Amino acid sequence: MPSAAGRWRGQVIAPSSDAARSYSRANGERFLGELIELLRIPSLSADPAHAEDVRQAAQWLADHLGGLGAENVAVMETAGHPVVFGEWLGAGVDKPTVLVYGHYDVVPAALEDGWDTPPFEPVVKDGKVFARGATDDKGQLFIHVKALESYLQSGDGPPVNLKFLLEGEEEVSSPNLRPFLEEHLDLLAADVCVISDSSMPSIDRPMITHSLRGMTYIEIEVEGPHDDLHSGFYGGAVHNPALALVEILAKMFNLDHSIAVPGFYDDVVPLTEAERAEVAKTAMTDEELLQATGVPAIWGEEAYTIRERVSARPTLEINGLLSGWTGPGPKTIIPAKAMAKVSCRLVGNQDPHDIYDKLRAYIESLAPPTVRVIVRLLTTGEPALIDFTLPEMQAAKRAYENGWGATPVFTRGGGSIPIVADIASLMQMPVVMMGYGLDTDGLHGTNEHFSLEMFQRGIETAIVYLEELAQLPR
Amino acid sequence: MPSAAGRWRGQVIAPSSDAARSYSRANGERFLGELIELLRIPSLSADPAHAEDVRQAAQWLADHLGGLGAENVAVMETAGHPVVFGEWLGAGVDKPTVLVYGHYDVVPAALEDGWDTPPFEPVVKDGKVFARGATDDKGQLFIHVKALESYLQSGDGPPVNLKFLLEGEEEVSSPNLRPFLEEHLDLLAADVCVISDSSMPSIDRPMITHSLRGMTYIEIEVEGPHDDLHSGFYGGAVHNPALALVEILAKMFNLDHSIAVPGFYDDVVPLTEAERAEVAKTAMTDEELLQATGVPAIWGEEAYTIRERVSARPTLEINGLLSGWTGPGPKTIIPAKAMAKVSCRLVGNQDPHDIYDKLRAYIESLAPPTVRVIVRLLTTGEPALIDFTLPEMQAAKRAYENGWGATPVFTRGGGSIPIVADIASLMQMPVVMMGYGLDTDGLHGTNEHFSLEMFQRGIETAIVYLEELAQLPR
Repeated sequence: MPSAAGRWRGQVIAPSSDAARSYSRANGERFLGELIELLRIPSLSADPAHAEDVRQAAQWLADHLGGLGAENVAVMETAGHPVVFGEWLGAGVDKPTVLVYGHYDVVPAALEDGWDTPPFEPVVKDGKVFARGATDDKGQLFIHVKALESYLQSGDGPPVNLKFLLEGEEEVSSPNLRPFLEEHLDLLAADVCVISDSSMPSIDRPMITHSLRGMTYIEIEVEGPHDDLHSGFYGGAVHNPALALVEILAKMFNLDHSIAVPGFYDDVVPLTEAERAEVAKTAMTDEELLQATGVPAIWGEEAYTIRERVSARPTLEINGLLSGWTGPGPKTIIPAKAMAKVSCRLVGNQDPHDIYDKLRAYIESLAPPTVRVIVRLLTTGEPALIDFTLPEMQAAKRAYENGWGATPVFTRGGGSIPIVADIASLMQMPVVMMGYGLDTDGLHGTNEHFSLEMFQRGIETAIVYLEELAQLPR
Repeated sequence: MPSAAGRWRGQVIAPSSDAARSYSRANGERFLGELIELLRIPSLSADPAHAEDVRQAAQWLADHLGGLGAENVAVMETAGHPVVFGEWLGAGVDKPTVLVYGHYDVVPAALEDGWDTPPFEPVVKDGKVFARGATDDKGQLFIHVKALESYLQSGDGPPVNLKFLLEGEEEVSSPNLRPFLEEHLDLLAADVCVISDSSMPSIDRPMITHSLRGMTYIEIEVEGPHDDLHSGFYGGAVHNPALALVEILAKMFNLDHSIAVPGFYDDVVPLTEAERAEVAKTAMTDEELLQATGVPAIWGEEAYTIRERVSARPTLEINGLLSGWTGPGPKTIIPAKAMAKVSCRLVGNQDPHDIYDKLRAYIESLAPPTVRVIVRLLTTGEPALIDFTLPEMQAAKRAYENGWGATPVFTRGGGSIPIVADIASLMQMPVVMMGYGLDTDGLHGTNEHFSLEMFQRGIETAIVYLEELAQLPR
């Protein structure tokens, strides 16, 4: 329905968004240069050694927002990395207010992980910008910053009020954002929250995410001898902690690839046939999965389709393993300890803390008396589900049709944005997730990148979305 | 039998060794200072970044040997790290020639592994010198260097001829030493080889090692996706390589802690009752093992005693694990790959290459089609067994009785010195392993150290051993 958007656009509004869109096109090259400045800052939130870089990225964004006309801009303290706030309330009290959430922190990256170019020295090649954070989430949050600038520089400003909430701890599961929200409910009050931190399978198949998975992330440590031992002197008489760890981890799954933790699925709401039909609209074939990932064969719960496995089903992954000697050549030790990072993606109505209790109890039940097993909770996040019949969700659909040039599908996201559930419940507003990335952007992996065409289309879609929201009956 | 040595010592010889022993006592403090110089050199043979340090240690030893009177001293090239050679043939052709083997390379060590002081900044505390290599093997090889000096500086020199063969690749399983031996059989020709690279349970219980275990050391790599994947986007539909790896490793053992690799025990020569009685002379109790290692409980094959498990039985150990994110905090990836280092200690008559074939075949049989599994052979070493009724072995026993002050036990070593089997078979001479370390010296672990009293007693025992060898009928 390419004409759907037309039904909603009045003659009075059209020139404003058209001018902003033109401005954004004319200034695209400069916008890219500014994004590259932001991408140069290694704002790794997980690594304490990069705390100053994280703060530098926050300050850069605050300066930038202030420079283009945002007001009350501030780098606001939390118990961890800071939040960047800024607002523009020029549309007036009779217009809706939109809260833009994004995150300026990134996950770790290093050239030696297999990047073609250094991850914090952005390179533009083949119509893409390559850098850690390009798509997740610096590039996507910058779309909204540039939408505001385009309205301000091409006319009287956006047709709605805007607030920016840009955090620096999303990649460590936002441990301090919920307290921040609770403390600043008035400052952040809005009618709708928009988040661009997701992706689509191809440029002509945009997606609006209406569901996200939650998370329980743990670390398992197995301790044996007080020091690494010479394997020739003690091998055969002590339980190797690395062996004890793999023996435990190998019992996490049943033979049918379901998760073996007792009670794990107790609170999972079964998928209805109607929901399975909705998920099927974004079906992924075996070939598409093999092509996208490079794995030799698919894997998982046979009773569910690929798309169901990666979005509507809970999962368990080993995210990291470390024990003993991992450098070049041989070293004949029995390691003193072994460590695994393990995380579960959760779906409604699983409770992350309940899942932690079940995981820990199961692991402890498997722990042999020959080693010491310690389970630590690293982070949790609630799953989220937004009703896609809400007017703000339907307005987003029209914005894609007009601004992007294709009709979006409402989809379940397999990832986690822990704060989505918090914003929806704490602040009583719908959260609209309009992702402008591609599934193949390499986020969290090597050679992360962001398409310049999608950057431009995203800015225009964001411009149109503000106009669509301004038209909604209040 | 403290008087046993007396039966073999003639009046002519005694003054020579007595003078050498006195000299070594008078100069012990300087000897320690020299050893500390050698310990400062981080001669890590496994790490290419330390190749120059390895060479520096070789040059230091060559200079030192030359300085105290050795002849034909040379740092000799191999395909890897160099060999240090030096000799003193002043006893004349009618006297036996002793080949001293030792190694000046060390295994990796870093303060952050848990050392109390930097591993290459030697510290003397509580009558011990703490440094990587203190006992394994710089301190022990230095005993023979100082025995030569003591004879030369206190009289006309040792009663036998001496040759030194000091290599720099023992800790990476001596890949280039066998070719070196084959090339230099004449240069290295001798009547007996003595090696000090082993240890005893306490200072009053010296051991002569007459058996060593062999080794097969492999690396297993499991490859899945071509890059790390975001676990939210692909989790549940691809086989996590870390999971595939732990599933394989968890199948290495049977429930009774025997090794599950088919055919693994086929060539193991069963222990006779007489051999078990010999091993029982060095029995280790559960309490001693727990005390020495810090593990909460013992583990292993119930049909065998602790000492049998760690010396007379073959073993399999996971020496290292690495996959995905191992830094602080969470990172929600599916790792692209996972790696394990795995080694087996072998006993007679296991063949290291045959064991490699069996290991690889078993692992490949366990590899699922959902990942790629690669098995690489890193190194092998043959097991060795020396007849302890040989005159050169019995002379060593007398040397301990006289020089050390206690009667030694002939024991099976659990570790591997791959070159021992090569020297014994290629060069047709008995190899006598007179270890001067303590089991608790922390070799290959943190806070490695060497007792100064054992350093001194070792020099005196080495001095007496040369005299005992000179007395043997030729």
